[in-house]
Amino acid sequence: MERLTAVYRLRVPADTVAARATGIAVEQSVEMPVAAVTDPAILADIVGKVENIADLGNGEFEARIGLSVATTGLEAGQLLNMLFGNSSMHPDIVLADAQFPQAVLDAFGGPRHGLAGLRKMAGAEGRAMTCSALKPQGSDAKTLALLAGRLAKGGLDFVKDDHGLADQHYSPFAERVPRIAEAMAANGKTIYLPSLSGHLEQMRRQIGIARAAGVKAVLIAPMIAGLATFHALVRDNPDIAFMAHPAMAGSGQIAPPFLFGKLLRLLGADAVVFANHGGRFGYSPATCRALADTALRPWGKVGGQMAGGLKAAVPVPAGGMTLARVAEMLQFYGKDVMLLIGGDLLCAGARISEEAAKFQDEVMRRSEAV
Amino acid sequence: MERLTAVYRLRVPADTVAARATGIAVEQSVEMPVAAVTDPAILADIVGKVENIADLGNGEFEARIGLSVATTGLEAGQLLNMLFGNSSMHPDIVLADAQFPQAVLDAFGGPRHGLAGLRKMAGAEGRAMTCSALKPQGSDAKTLALLAGRLAKGGLDFVKDDHGLADQHYSPFAERVPRIAEAMAANGKTIYLPSLSGHLEQMRRQIGIARAAGVKAVLIAPMIAGLATFHALVRDNPDIAFMAHPAMAGSGQIAPPFLFGKLLRLLGADAVVFANHGGRFGYSPATCRALADTALRPWGKVGGQMAGGLKAAVPVPAGGMTLARVAEMLQFYGKDVMLLIGGDLLCAGARISEEAAKFQDEVMRRSEAV
Repeated sequence: MERLTAVYRLRVPADTVAARATGIAVEQSVEMPVAAVTDPAILADIVGKVENIADLGNGEFEARIGLSVATTGLEAGQLLNMLFGNSSMHPDIVLADAQFPQAVLDAFGGPRHGLAGLRKMAGAEGRAMTCSALKPQGSDAKTLALLAGRLAKGGLDFVKDDHGLADQHYSPFAERVPRIAEAMAANGKTIYLPSLSGHLEQMRRQIGIARAAGVKAVLIAPMIAGLATFHALVRDNPDIAFMAHPAMAGSGQIAPPFLFGKLLRLLGADAVVFANHGGRFGYSPATCRALADTALRPWGKVGGQMAGGLKAAVPVPAGGMTLARVAEMLQFYGKDVMLLIGGDLLCAGARISEEAAKFQDEVMRRSEAV
Repeated sequence: MERLTAVYRLRVPADTVAARATGIAVEQSVEMPVAAVTDPAILADIVGKVENIADLGNGEFEARIGLSVATTGLEAGQLLNMLFGNSSMHPDIVLADAQFPQAVLDAFGGPRHGLAGLRKMAGAEGRAMTCSALKPQGSDAKTLALLAGRLAKGGLDFVKDDHGLADQHYSPFAERVPRIAEAMAANGKTIYLPSLSGHLEQMRRQIGIARAAGVKAVLIAPMIAGLATFHALVRDNPDIAFMAHPAMAGSGQIAPPFLFGKLLRLLGADAVVFANHGGRFGYSPATCRALADTALRPWGKVGGQMAGGLKAAVPVPAGGMTLARVAEMLQFYGKDVMLLIGGDLLCAGARISEEAAKFQDEVMRRSEAV
């Protein structure tokens, strides 16, 4: 029976690491004393197996644990449950990475559009892409549509709802989304990503409203929606591109390169928004680099049904970015990236179309050089 | 416009705490430079407000921040998004607590059964309750049903699926649940809680299968399912009791007393499983005490539609508990508790009915004394 390998980082005393690793292997599989497991097939195939323990130095260890793929039922929520459900309650354990066999990749399928698809959608072949956000929440649909039109006029590739825009009385989804989509279509070719909220049924209804308004992409926070909900929407709406928002991603207990670059990509995120270094949040440059590399790296089998493997997810560094940082960010990430500047653009007030155009021009011009 | 008060604990240098608190207030509301917000109504009603900052000593501060209830749209996922979505990415911020106005309590409604309802269901008036778990996963439905029958014969109040039991090929939900329910009904009055998995549609189907088999209660991991999914199931199935499992609850970035005792209770958890001190996980006795107190405390208005306020959620300390700890746990928690012993009972092998009976007898007998 096939296994996936889950990789954990442990901050524990050296003389306890073997027992702790075995503890995780049991916790993330049968969750009972192994001595009381009598079925030899379960002992052989289901109980987690410590494959390796490495000393990373500085009191940190890496444990590689083989977990039965069968226990995941190839279902997204249960996959997370088996990778980290109970162990997430330990403050000294990080879910650092996982290696999945091809069966897992085939079952979830990865992005339906990915880097190449979003570039095509935006007419942004061979260059970095741009994105901004509609804020502040509390604004009515008319005000947001006005702002959206102005941003579109600046020629941005993408404009998303603020992730705080849900289905509030001051700008209900059903009113807001068609208005914004219309305003943007009237002012340019910018692609609008409305923010989904609620449960599966509500999100399906929202996608229906968005699709009817000509929308081709949406924003979703998978760690709030639930991974099963996220994956069901991806699977059922192959015409829609999905940008994943990092709300409730936590502060690193699931390593960001794995969470954004692998897990959300596996489940179908075409683009992953994350907290860039030097902004309002604390990811290091090394974490950001690893995240982007992982999201873009070739993954899965070449040839056959999944020719070329899983599509690349576009890294979207964000969280307090400014126009002044465009050159440095393109230097850091190269051109396989979407730069997201929200609040800083909005500070331009009435000159917002010009500021958006400046952002767009700078990204297009500097993309040539990197 | 009404506000809720979110309470954060910050581990930051004293000279930065005011700025950090303001940062959270902005992050969890308009998420843009406040100087660029022009609408006076948004400035007055929507932008988060720092209400108080207290020095807790040892480099820790408490910031109380007023957030507009309107931004939550009174929707469970968005409520979490507004309380902690982006701020969850900061390693030095804990969501410690929140105070909700009555409108929020009315909108979500709390447990439909609660402590009194579960006691009535189990015929356990005036005493602590018992629970065990069906393990290990990898077993087929027949084997699990055999175990379930033996546990029921011992007279336990509740038996739940292991939270790793989902919809795997070795014991699919649709086969497993009716078999187990039948075996338990044939051997006693124990209440069975099958484990839900997947997304809303799948969970609704599972509840349908369970209800048809006479099941009156279910287990769900809200932090995996998504809070919106959890709340929709609670609202739409008032005849079913919900036990919340802590998988993916994390290691304390959302303070357990708030997460289990308030947030999950608000959304309808009739019982909350959590990691007891001195088991496989690291909660302190003080955390466990605060969690149980919070889950049981009177909450909400007296009189009117919600006479008596929100029902109490039953604390279910678990995670490596043993028969040897029953007396001490009852001493610690009193009788408003459900004791959950899984793996330790299973070690009894063929003598499992006797061991379950011993557990049940001890809890019933010792409940008299506390």
